[in-house]
Amino acid sequence: MANSVENQNQHKTLDLPKPKLRCIVKLGGAAITRKNELESINEESLGTVCTQLRKAMASSPAARAAGMDWSRRKGNPINASDLDPVTEFSEIGVDSDFIIVHGAGSFGHFHASRSGVHKGGVHLPLVKAGFVATRISVTSLNLEIVRALAQEGIPAVGMSPFACGWSTRERNVASADISQLIKALQTGFVPILHGDAVLDDLQGCTILSGDVIIRHLAQLLMPDYVVFLTDVLGVYDRPPTDPNAILLREIAVDEDGDWSIVKPALDHSKGQDVEITVAAHDTTGGMETKIQEAAMIAKLGIDVFITKAGTEYSERALKGEVRHAPDDWLGTVIRSVRH
Amino acid sequence: MANSVENQNQHKTLDLPKPKLRCIVKLGGAAITRKNELESINEESLGTVCTQLRKAMASSPAARAAGMDWSRRKGNPINASDLDPVTEFSEIGVDSDFIIVHGAGSFGHFHASRSGVHKGGVHLPLVKAGFVATRISVTSLNLEIVRALAQEGIPAVGMSPFACGWSTRERNVASADISQLIKALQTGFVPILHGDAVLDDLQGCTILSGDVIIRHLAQLLMPDYVVFLTDVLGVYDRPPTDPNAILLREIAVDEDGDWSIVKPALDHSKGQDVEITVAAHDTTGGMETKIQEAAMIAKLGIDVFITKAGTEYSERALKGEVRHAPDDWLGTVIRSVRH
Repeated sequence: MANSVENQNQHKTLDLPKPKLRCIVKLGGAAITRKNELESINEESLGTVCTQLRKAMASSPAARAAGMDWSRRKGNPINASDLDPVTEFSEIGVDSDFIIVHGAGSFGHFHASRSGVHKGGVHLPLVKAGFVATRISVTSLNLEIVRALAQEGIPAVGMSPFACGWSTRERNVASADISQLIKALQTGFVPILHGDAVLDDLQGCTILSGDVIIRHLAQLLMPDYVVFLTDVLGVYDRPPTDPNAILLREIAVDEDGDWSIVKPALDHSKGQDVEITVAAHDTTGGMETKIQEAAMIAKLGIDVFITKAGTEYSERALKGEVRHAPDDWLGTVIRSVRH
Repeated sequence: MANSVENQNQHKTLDLPKPKLRCIVKLGGAAITRKNELESINEESLGTVCTQLRKAMASSPAARAAGMDWSRRKGNPINASDLDPVTEFSEIGVDSDFIIVHGAGSFGHFHASRSGVHKGGVHLPLVKAGFVATRISVTSLNLEIVRALAQEGIPAVGMSPFACGWSTRERNVASADISQLIKALQTGFVPILHGDAVLDDLQGCTILSGDVIIRHLAQLLMPDYVVFLTDVLGVYDRPPTDPNAILLREIAVDEDGDWSIVKPALDHSKGQDVEITVAAHDTTGGMETKIQEAAMIAKLGIDVFITKAGTEYSERALKGEVRHAPDDWLGTVIRSVRH
């Protein structure tokens, strides 16, 4: 895949001191939404993810969550004159050097597929309409995720790639001014980005996936580690629903970006190959693309952990406690051969 | 007020061909939300505003609205496999050379006031929490307005100033990269911006008002005209609830930005002065600031119309049919003395 780091952005980034970035987290669409039900959030999963994120980011173990979503409760009109000044915020209690990127799941994918946004042609009425519909869908999900994080006391701020100026050229990142994202990080906020409908220099428009966004950010900002939270335990050698599916525990990546399975050792003479499931509606490439994006991050020396959201395994991965592929940790580690 | 057009932005804008911009519209928070009820939209008013906007933007009188909000109906789970590809979009039917900016109304103002975001100090836990809460509130309103416009067939795309990189210095616009906004316009979308919590170079953070955003955009992009939609007929010489209040029909602005009331002719010997209502909770300056911002736009030769949303007067103003201050048009025109 062509080098997507645009020179102008590198220059812009060099102007600013490189922020301390501990981790970039991908919230997979399948992990936090109900896949086959249009625009339906998996509330329980999202809640657990937020709790685990807060624990991973906590600056002091005893700090209690200070809710930052002060919205009106559904159906409960509040007379504004009843609101008192807020005085009980003595501390935030989190160190916020995380970036979070989420997928669309059952928000956006359907709208994009129906109208062909990923294929371009934004001048066409149907595609233009689909672009608008897709953005409404993904930004509504973004808002709900920001709310959930804020309720957990995480100082989350939504930053939609389209609005921030991310654009593509033949579906690779062409420009992405991350100076505002860096300032937000340095001010102590947690930027929440997402897969989005964006403008494309050649084909007019396309869908920019959360995975490509993460890879681009990792290349520019060099986090300590990256965690992908999904709805399955990790990468398998065949569709996970197959009873014979084997969890790939460790994948090593060399300097050219080529990857091989280290653990478990697969018997190639029996023709065991990795057959990756690609969901039909996922317009951005599915699991195989995810491994490729993860490999491009790992070859920089950044460990990537893919595991199931809301488990003890995701909790340890988010805290940065997982090294290599421990026997008592279920998930996939993708790392450089040099690590 | 200091010149807020930052050199770097002028340079960036000169790189791009200036887009054709017919009108910038301000949707006043008081016009589309219920002022004293926290986070409550005035659905009827918003609906009428969107219908009028569509009529003003229609490229062909007979074009029917093609809804672009494909969300799940509240409470109605949709099985995604039931969705068919959309084929009935033959035309959009609007010429989209408008920009819309909305205020916060009962979304955001309370959160900002409670925590003092407008006064700065983003390193303080309370202010940081208030910043997050304010952004959640204003972006949720932005989403609802984008939905309402999209349902009316207007290709609206939300562009939050904080995410787009708008920032202030001592509360004046310090930087605002509008290149993405220009690209969106040129692609045929209608950008929807809003008053937002932003970073401030000196005081850490503040609230950037929709009125300042409009003035900044007008200076850079030179629209044909600007319309402010409010909850009263225009600017009055005293609080409009006063039975003796007089509607100021026409205000003329000279090259220095000084303004005077042209119509009606006020008797200064009786000490009739303009006493402008400033709502206590409005953290961005109220009506007097609005006249000053409007005057700064008018002195560039751009006519500004302030009138009540959802009336025949707003409909005519949006269509660009109002010249000077006709006897049968109720509202306030603010124009250059040279017009």
